[in-house]
Amino acid sequence: MTDLAQQVLDGDRRALARAITRVESTRPDHRHDAEQLLAKLLPHTGGSIRIGISGAPGAGKSTFIEALGTHVIDAGHRVAVLAVDPSSARSGGSILGDKTRMERLARSPGAFVRPSPTRGTLGGVARRTREALLVCEAAGFDVVLVETVGVGQSEVAVAAMVDLFLVLVAPGAGDELQGLKRGIMELADVVVVNKADGDLRRAAGSTASEYAGALHLMRPRSEEWTPRVVTCSAIEGTGIAEVWDAVEEFRASTGATLATRRGEQAKEWLWSEVTGSLLDRLRADPATATLARKLEADVTAGRITPGAAAHRLLDEFLHPRPG
Amino acid sequence: MTDLAQQVLDGDRRALARAITRVESTRPDHRHDAEQLLAKLLPHTGGSIRIGISGAPGAGKSTFIEALGTHVIDAGHRVAVLAVDPSSARSGGSILGDKTRMERLARSPGAFVRPSPTRGTLGGVARRTREALLVCEAAGFDVVLVETVGVGQSEVAVAAMVDLFLVLVAPGAGDELQGLKRGIMELADVVVVNKADGDLRRAAGSTASEYAGALHLMRPRSEEWTPRVVTCSAIEGTGIAEVWDAVEEFRASTGATLATRRGEQAKEWLWSEVTGSLLDRLRADPATATLARKLEADVTAGRITPGAAAHRLLDEFLHPRPG
Repeated sequence: MTDLAQQVLDGDRRALARAITRVESTRPDHRHDAEQLLAKLLPHTGGSIRIGISGAPGAGKSTFIEALGTHVIDAGHRVAVLAVDPSSARSGGSILGDKTRMERLARSPGAFVRPSPTRGTLGGVARRTREALLVCEAAGFDVVLVETVGVGQSEVAVAAMVDLFLVLVAPGAGDELQGLKRGIMELADVVVVNKADGDLRRAAGSTASEYAGALHLMRPRSEEWTPRVVTCSAIEGTGIAEVWDAVEEFRASTGATLATRRGEQAKEWLWSEVTGSLLDRLRADPATATLARKLEADVTAGRITPGAAAHRLLDEFLHPRPG
Repeated sequence: MTDLAQQVLDGDRRALARAITRVESTRPDHRHDAEQLLAKLLPHTGGSIRIGISGAPGAGKSTFIEALGTHVIDAGHRVAVLAVDPSSARSGGSILGDKTRMERLARSPGAFVRPSPTRGTLGGVARRTREALLVCEAAGFDVVLVETVGVGQSEVAVAAMVDLFLVLVAPGAGDELQGLKRGIMELADVVVVNKADGDLRRAAGSTASEYAGALHLMRPRSEEWTPRVVTCSAIEGTGIAEVWDAVEEFRASTGATLATRRGEQAKEWLWSEVTGSLLDRLRADPATATLARKLEADVTAGRITPGAAAHRLLDEFLHPRPG
């Protein structure tokens, strides 16, 4: 792991890919290696701006990431693209699994696009992506984009690991706005209305106004930054510079508290790891898992209170009978 | 506990108060009693409509609950009022601690207003309120109002224990809407704009329109019910009947899936109990608690990854060294 760590720090791209594969592995011996590796890399992390990008299918997410990534590389940065997509575990598909996506960006020497999906539960996927993010930072990438689909709870997990959360939407009338997943707007630091081109140019403008109105109804997440709405056309490349300007303004406005916020995120991450791992170990214990299934059924049917059921489950898990 | 359970089932009001006190206690021996008591009462629970009521200070929450409660009692129901207010643990105050609040309702033989606050962490307070709700149902109350302040995470906890979540707001211009806590609107099944009287009557109407517009931007929580906005004046008593009509329509629309939703809520409650209790026990273990404080500091300062820190913490907790 010491060699691999050094190769990652030297910017060896294949070592980077291998390191992320190791971090993503759920095998216990790999987990041990991953922790050693991360311990070596940790002093060299923290040097990127971490950007979460969420967008429902149809918002043009991969075209947008390609356009933004290319713009950012042209401005002298190095860009890594990761993904949190627990849905891929079910569907077998992946938001980054399609090789033809982001082809141009993936070929750029300034970019690293992680093509394979991380699989498993949201908690597991999120943990491995957070750690992959650290590996990318250690490898010298100073912009990390963490992509996620605009459905489910993965946005909350991504927002908890990034500095800035960007929501990408397509122009649409009220009907489409209604389809916006609850809660996503509340995480947004920047809303980007994509596809402001051709027939949709006018619709993009009014969609932007609607989102500005919706954001106006919400309390900003921080005192330092008021969420803003930008329109762009990823296909034509218009507005992409303005999106990046918004990111840089965000960084300038919030830079003073960055270390504090990241420290808080890391502490929350610790406790979510502790919680997740405790539940994993509880479920991995055969006797406890059997009892859990029975108690779940009893609780659902109203035969026992959740409090009493939890009590019995913990007694089984923490004080197993001998034999 | 068998006697106390029988007295609760017989509708003895002092027994009800004693039973809730027992359920609220954090003493381990009381906890044991409480579980026995709840086991006896459980077959007699489930007969109420469970309504969460959230409102920021200034929305007129106690006046509204008094007006709604009185209306509902006049319609032949029996009403219990509980509260989730973890903030009272810090401030020493309580949303239900003021004896002069809901005086009229509290004197009514059809009402039970729990005057004392439950104290402690949100998880603990929420658990005890969920169990108090079951006790009230066993005592024959067929409407249970669970009040919470419109700040913090207590709304999410209350929404997870009720059938219908009602958000009370005061008329206000855009500035006040902005102050609305993120996330509350997304939990709302019914939004009530209070104080639609005197000088504020017109403002209440336009506030109602604004909230209707905001709700329109969100996907409904269920297919069976589209959230609606009602205006009322709790002081004048106008619109209160319309609020209750909305509750009854909600019940009619969602009745078919009530058992399923409550079963899901109970299962989620089981796992949140398991998680909360596991963390409680982890923190109650002196060696683990000491290590946790050290690791929290290390993680915040970036000296160790949260994943590795969690690993060490769990090894300490689950496999203590002999000695």
